[in-house]
Amino acid sequence: MKSLLIIAHGSRRQASNEEVRNLASRIASKTSKQFDIVQSAFLELAEPSIPGGIQKCIEQGAKQIIVLPYFLSAGRHVAEDVPNEVAASRDQYPEVDIHIASYLGDIDAIADLMVEHATEAIRA
Amino acid sequence: MKSLLIIAHGSRRQASNEEVRNLASRIASKTSKQFDIVQSAFLELAEPSIPGGIQKCIEQGAKQIIVLPYFLSAGRHVAEDVPNEVAASRDQYPEVDIHIASYLGDIDAIADLMVEHATEAIRA
Repeated sequence: MKSLLIIAHGSRRQASNEEVRNLASRIASKTSKQFDIVQSAFLELAEPSIPGGIQKCIEQGAKQIIVLPYFLSAGRHVAEDVPNEVAASRDQYPEVDIHIASYLGDIDAIADLMVEHATEAIRA
Repeated sequence: MKSLLIIAHGSRRQASNEEVRNLASRIASKTSKQFDIVQSAFLELAEPSIPGGIQKCIEQGAKQIIVLPYFLSAGRHVAEDVPNEVAASRDQYPEVDIHIASYLGDIDAIADLMVEHATEAIRA
């Protein structure tokens, strides 16, 4: 079973955390062929934590987990904090293949998405 | 003349600010038909500021400016700080049409982009 784990920073504003959970739900509805489970998790300030999110995936049967950091820049959180949290779970569940994909802001196609969005804003 | 102004939070890490400036350059190369000018600006910690970025666009001849907040959630920065800074520039340049597009995280297609990215990470 394959699982996608979307990791966001987490916010004191519950509405921001809900945005991430809603995004995970939307992604789940689009990706049932590729991923059996889509879960969100937070680095801080919201639940579940990263180890908690990984555990939820594994409890549902995940053998492979793709971790997607929902961050725009490669700051300390992306470079150190997320990998460190994931490494601890890898040690705990050595039989599960956990792979960290590059962070959202690193996806080349985001530029195309922004072009399209900005162009629509001209028309509006 | 139309201008696209990409607004990021700004970081103490110069590399993060450079990521935003590079993104603006990549977008400029993709969008020369729609926008004569593509400029980046920062809410804090980096230059130019939002009013400074708007001024750069206007100095280059912009009559319409689309402001695109490069943020993932609708926190205080997106809901209050960016609009407040933009409002001050609108007062200063009433002849320029300045429109704030919805923030990056609000774009529906971001879910599709993440699905594609996560699926590629399975194959890798």
